[in-house]
Amino acid sequence: MWKFIKYDNNIDFGRSIVIVGFPGMGLVGKTVASHLIDSLDAKLFGVIYGTKFPAQLIVDSGGIGEISKVLIYNSKVNDLGVFIVTGDSQPISDSDQHFLSHYILSKLRKYNIVEVIAAAAYVSDVVVSSRRVFVVGNNKDVLRKYVDKGAVVLSEGVISGLNGIIIGWAKVFGIQGTCALGETWRSIVELNYVDYTAAKLVIDLLSNVWNLGVDTRDLERKGKGIEKEVELLLRSFTQQKEEGIKGEKRPYYIT
Amino acid sequence: MWKFIKYDNNIDFGRSIVIVGFPGMGLVGKTVASHLIDSLDAKLFGVIYGTKFPAQLIVDSGGIGEISKVLIYNSKVNDLGVFIVTGDSQPISDSDQHFLSHYILSKLRKYNIVEVIAAAAYVSDVVVSSRRVFVVGNNKDVLRKYVDKGAVVLSEGVISGLNGIIIGWAKVFGIQGTCALGETWRSIVELNYVDYTAAKLVIDLLSNVWNLGVDTRDLERKGKGIEKEVELLLRSFTQQKEEGIKGEKRPYYIT
Amino acid sequence: MWKFIKYDNNIDFGRSIVIVGFPGMGLVGKTVASHLIDSLDAKLFGVIYGTKFPAQLIVDSGGIGEISKVLIYNSKVNDLGVFIVTGDSQPISDSDQHFLSHYILSKLRKYNIVEVIAAAAYVSDVVVSSRRVFVVGNNKDVLRKYVDKGAVVLSEGVISGLNGIIIGWAKVFGIQGTCALGETWRSIVELNYVDYTAAKLVIDLLSNVWNLGVDTRDLERKGKGIEKEVELLLRSFTQQKEEGIKGEKRPYYIT
Amino acid sequence: MWKFIKYDNNIDFGRSIVIVGFPGMGLVGKTVASHLIDSLDAKLFGVIYGTKFPAQLIVDSGGIGEISKVLIYNSKVNDLGVFIVTGDSQPISDSDQHFLSHYILSKLRKYNIVEVIAAAAYVSDVVVSSRRVFVVGNNKDVLRKYVDKGAVVLSEGVISGLNGIIIGWAKVFGIQGTCALGETWRSIVELNYVDYTAAKLVIDLLSNVWNLGVDTRDLERKGKGIEKEVELLLRSFTQQKEEGIKGEKRPYYIT
Repeated sequence: MWKFIKYDNNIDFGRSIVIVGFPGMGLVGKTVASHLIDSLDAKLFGVIYGTKFPAQLIVDSGGIGEISKVLIYNSKVNDLGVFIVTGDSQPISDSDQHFLSHYILSKLRKYNIVEVIAAAAYVSDVVVSSRRVFVVGNNKDVLRKYVDKGAVVLSEGVISGLNGIIIGWAKVFGIQGTCALGETWRSIVELNYVDYTAAKLVIDLLSNVWNLGVDTRDLERKGKGIEKEVELLLRSFTQQKEEGIKGEKRPYYIT
Repeated sequence: MWKFIKYDNNIDFGRSIVIVGFPGMGLVGKTVASHLIDSLDAKLFGVIYGTKFPAQLIVDSGGIGEISKVLIYNSKVNDLGVFIVTGDSQPISDSDQHFLSHYILSKLRKYNIVEVIAAAAYVSDVVVSSRRVFVVGNNKDVLRKYVDKGAVVLSEGVISGLNGIIIGWAKVFGIQGTCALGETWRSIVELNYVDYTAAKLVIDLLSNVWNLGVDTRDLERKGKGIEKEVELLLRSFTQQKEEGIKGEKRPYYIT
Repeated sequence: MWKFIKYDNNIDFGRSIVIVGFPGMGLVGKTVASHLIDSLDAKLFGVIYGTKFPAQLIVDSGGIGEISKVLIYNSKVNDLGVFIVTGDSQPISDSDQHFLSHYILSKLRKYNIVEVIAAAAYVSDVVVSSRRVFVVGNNKDVLRKYVDKGAVVLSEGVISGLNGIIIGWAKVFGIQGTCALGETWRSIVELNYVDYTAAKLVIDLLSNVWNLGVDTRDLERKGKGIEKEVELLLRSFTQQKEEGIKGEKRPYYIT
Repeated sequence: MWKFIKYDNNIDFGRSIVIVGFPGMGLVGKTVASHLIDSLDAKLFGVIYGTKFPAQLIVDSGGIGEISKVLIYNSKVNDLGVFIVTGDSQPISDSDQHFLSHYILSKLRKYNIVEVIAAAAYVSDVVVSSRRVFVVGNNKDVLRKYVDKGAVVLSEGVISGLNGIIIGWAKVFGIQGTCALGETWRSIVELNYVDYTAAKLVIDLLSNVWNLGVDTRDLERKGKGIEKEVELLLRSFTQQKEEGIKGEKRPYYIT
């Protein structure tokens, strides 16, 4: 069961885009959404409550508890309406992730949506210093403008969860769709850090393509901090391991 | 599928509260509900049957079998209507716990509900002699009256299951909601005892705030018995462990 | 999704009972149903197809494949209508077992059902030569007539699956319900044998109470065969085990 | 949730068949479908989108991502309408495989369907050089024409998934149904190869029975390649194993 509560009824967007960022690997999608909400001074447009999230009341530091929900914000940048869709968690089951994707689009389609963009992460096994943004489209024509701004077309792969499938559903609604995947390190994801750098790069791309004028210096600074922290941790792991190996080997070679 | 069978049709509460207590850790919520039903001489108001509980017929000592169900009782205390909602078990899936929360409130909302209070447990890792009652609200204003009577505002956390999420759903219906969590010991929960002490403290709080005039001396007495039993068990475990350790160590140091 | 296809439209039972026997432990319930269908020369009354059984096409020796379904037969014995409900399997999930129980009763309730009787197994850990039939009712009054014919009232327990919960749902429909549990041996169940003896005893009880006049000598004979086979197997297991133990011990004591 | 989008509205088949081939063991069913779509120059008739497939966006080499869907093609061969139904994956749950089977038939039934044929694999434990095609029907009469063309009636068994159960559902709709199972080697299935040989044999059978005039020489050639590759792999495994065994045995017998 899903329940949409609309807060803002007076919207008149001649042309708008939807940017989707749910929690996923490295929290890239959600960080993109949160930063855009702040930077574009977006207003809460609607809330979707549902029975398909984990059965948990999440309590904040002030003792206020809430169930998981989808938050839809909007803002007007130049003449472009921008909807930003995010949430505390993704629905538990694959089927409900599909259903929610469909539901979100069915609620927003009437606002002259020209493109749905989902932000997600592309996990690199190696620690790369120069990060890329990969793009996937729901048709051939949608990607050119991203590639022109430096994005790399992803060749084969599978994107799991809401941040991927929603652009598949966009096609069913006849709406253009793009998935922008910020390259992240496996080590950042596995150490449960937020990858601000990947989020920054995705936002820079979207900002360039759609002229959103978003400042991402703050994300850049935080991202560099995380990268340093993770590299330090990795180095200390490697040292321990080497020492551990030495320690273990000693009895066999020295004694 | 849920089916609501209403027994009592002639209700006229100018103002009422809903107290929810389903089985959970230490059976605190259910014990609160059961004790209130007895003490307030509450009448069966309605029953909710559903397909989402475990597929089991539970047979009592007299050979009578029943499927799990939700029981709703009510009583009038001074001018306040009090609904008490409990059951034999919680729905199996997260999604059905959400749905049932929503369903219960949709059936009761017309009775001028001013607040939904869920009773649950807060598990302490240590054995504390002086137990607290923590409170979580679905907005900022609801908690003051509980804090004034000695409750502690919970700062950050997650409350799983019906006894938590129902106050999140209350907010969706525009109803105030509070979760009152009686502090329990991890050992009581893990040894599968009923924590009457935690239930007593939750009831005392509710009774103070809402002037219910409930006597909890019986719960207090039972609770002290349980605490003693658990402490005895813990002590015997510790002794065995110490003796065990001694026993294991002997061969190395003495022989 | 459930789909009921009714074959026999001309039914006029002043008073009828429903006997339910789905596959379960020792196949007691299903064997009761199959034997009654044969003995009472029951006609196919209707079929329930559904999406909630395992996704399998079961192919018989003649190359004909079918999906799982519920079969409802009926017969008239003296003035009593007898519906017999069985199937190839139970729905996969607890929720769908509940739903199907409700669905079956919703389709049959209009035929003046005075009682729903579910046949199931009661598993004994020991090999008992004199088997009992236990009964559970959905109210106090329903059991007397079974006890008068030798059944034992079950005191506390849990009956899992359709053959138990359907009498819980019968109560929701305001229909009397009894569960008759033929005592079976854990060894028969674990060796995957059909317990004809337990089925025979359940049928004898029902036949006595409802004057069905069913001959169960065939089941008795088959049941004795199974009991002998299982006892032989158990004895050979025990011998092997004893020899095994001897075999293992030899090196330590003799060599 | 399922959504049927029909592309081709002008269809007038006096008599048509439905051939179903979803991904399964050895990809036999899907290969049958793909080859028929190409050979019969079938046109896309409709697409079924649904929420019950894995929550994944599958990205192709050109950066275009799509969610899983069911594709329905059709063609006219002589006077026979031929619908071919396939997809990227089967629904996750048993229940949704059942539901989709029912849904597909409910959308196609109006096109004068005289038979539903599902293509699947029959896995042989041994490497057989002469492969058979087994058939299962949803009634006694449907199989003769296949047996006349050399198919073998399957005696007892269980066919899992959409490629089996859809002919069970066909019966519920009063439509003839056959499952044609191409014999495959367990080794081909376990090594994750596509069994073109089994697919070829199924198509030859269908082509003979329904006069489809399909050329399968390409499949035959590819199939022989796969068989050789698998036999080579098996031989190298066996050698390694034998050498491995020799290697292990040496210390005990020779040293």
